[in-house]
Amino acid sequence: MKQYVAIIGPGATATTEDCRNARDAAALLAADGATIVSGGLGGVMAAATEGAASAGGITVGLLPGPDRSSGHPDLTVSIPTGLGELRNGLVVRSVDCVLAVGCSWGTLSEIALAVRTGVPVVSLGGWDLPHDDGLRTASDVEDAVAAVRAVLAGP
Amino acid sequence: MKQYVAIIGPGATATTEDCRNARDAAALLAADGATIVSGGLGGVMAAATEGAASAGGITVGLLPGPDRSSGHPDLTVSIPTGLGELRNGLVVRSVDCVLAVGCSWGTLSEIALAVRTGVPVVSLGGWDLPHDDGLRTASDVEDAVAAVRAVLAGP
Amino acid sequence: MKQYVAIIGPGATATTEDCRNARDAAALLAADGATIVSGGLGGVMAAATEGAASAGGITVGLLPGPDRSSGHPDLTVSIPTGLGELRNGLVVRSVDCVLAVGCSWGTLSEIALAVRTGVPVVSLGGWDLPHDDGLRTASDVEDAVAAVRAVLAGP
Amino acid sequence: MKQYVAIIGPGATATTEDCRNARDAAALLAADGATIVSGGLGGVMAAATEGAASAGGITVGLLPGPDRSSGHPDLTVSIPTGLGELRNGLVVRSVDCVLAVGCSWGTLSEIALAVRTGVPVVSLGGWDLPHDDGLRTASDVEDAVAAVRAVLAGP
Repeated sequence: MKQYVAIIGPGATATTEDCRNARDAAALLAADGATIVSGGLGGVMAAATEGAASAGGITVGLLPGPDRSSGHPDLTVSIPTGLGELRNGLVVRSVDCVLAVGCSWGTLSEIALAVRTGVPVVSLGGWDLPHDDGLRTASDVEDAVAAVRAVLAGP
Repeated sequence: MKQYVAIIGPGATATTEDCRNARDAAALLAADGATIVSGGLGGVMAAATEGAASAGGITVGLLPGPDRSSGHPDLTVSIPTGLGELRNGLVVRSVDCVLAVGCSWGTLSEIALAVRTGVPVVSLGGWDLPHDDGLRTASDVEDAVAAVRAVLAGP
Repeated sequence: MKQYVAIIGPGATATTEDCRNARDAAALLAADGATIVSGGLGGVMAAATEGAASAGGITVGLLPGPDRSSGHPDLTVSIPTGLGELRNGLVVRSVDCVLAVGCSWGTLSEIALAVRTGVPVVSLGGWDLPHDDGLRTASDVEDAVAAVRAVLAGP
Repeated sequence: MKQYVAIIGPGATATTEDCRNARDAAALLAADGATIVSGGLGGVMAAATEGAASAGGITVGLLPGPDRSSGHPDLTVSIPTGLGELRNGLVVRSVDCVLAVGCSWGTLSEIALAVRTGVPVVSLGGWDLPHDDGLRTASDVEDAVAAVRAVLAGP
């Protein structure tokens, strides 16, 4: 069965390290055969798309706007949802595991929705939240990818 | 112009204090003429509905499920959205100010969406988040209601 | 239990007769205690809102845009969904019966969604569709209101 | 630029001819390089997915349910939207042209939303609607594919 991983994180406020981590993680997971889902825009989203594409993987961008002009050109499939930030819920709903790289308020909304709805979350370089039930904090890219792989492998 | 305030917070995990705070705040804001929007279910949502109803106010419940059977009986209007947790985004989108009483992962998703989309948030008894830009932390019900009133009064 | 009826129909292309029918039907159903849901804009939507308000009823407008400025001032509750035409599905989903007055492509999308999802539809002055399973065509306002009342009364 | 075509039509009530037409049209359009979007389930949706896959094309299924178990195995990407019939609006919103093969109430809702929002629609073997502005009725598969190609080629 095909498996889907969302790589989420800041757009305009992403750090260079966030983007490098997202790119590397996406390439490794895409090489495993995972489909990489993101919000389809810049920053961590773009890095994840590029990383997965570099490994020959399939990438999906669920865009907030009503047309696909804002989507990254490397996306295999872009879906202009026209839902604004409600598309964050679709990103979470459509995957087997969420990997958050860095954080922002938009990213936090997706992490929170994922924990709320039982989608496993791995967090790398994110905010230090007061509760961590349902969250797996990773120390580096290798650790993050190992944690995602463990989720996909199942219990 | 009519003004809309979302009162959000935990359902099943709400504390007695959360519920008392939500009830009291809702009654005060409804007495001002504000329409109180919530997720329409139990805990803080039910307390806000009951508080606003006790003050003769209008209450709206945006329900996650496909029918209105789960909605609080005091709701003036219940909307079964069938959107699951995506309805959290509708709660935030439909109001002029968000008052969060207590916290949970679902509540956190709404706080984060509100900050992300520029809807002012007042938080009472919530989690201690690592960033507080866009959030106004209140010390008690009176302080929270004053902060919401300041938002509604405008700059 | 509170009952909800959607009154749907053309906006800018509504005829004078459509608007009079929508106003009269809304007033009668609101006098029964039904909550009148609409898309919240002009034409048939505005007429239904005004008719229900004139009878002291509760009216809900589910607006397509991201803010409530386009909503009719008589609405008891307006919800800016920001969903564009996807809000048509929310209108249908949130009611016990749909009354279509006149027709347009937007109206037709709601009729079709209602039939598809099992929400009873009464149609007055609409298009002559090639299939009418799930649709009750009414001859005038009195007949339409009687048909809606029969739906709300249940089997 | 990548181009997206929705092939829509009945699920369980699709005729053998509808399915053959959908399969053939999907294969031809996928061979052109178009991405084929559908509702991801059976009948015309399954036929379109299989036809596009047979031509090596990319297929996307926007599923109504909350998980991807109902999606066709040939889909390149399946998105469990959890939106129920509101996903019909996403199907329409995400494409440059809609090809309707056969009809049903669900299909009609998509046709109506497309015409309403300005997405060109080509219809093959559908219902005889009382208005046809915005609709191009095709006589057979070749005619339908030619009409879709004309839309994609632009004015």
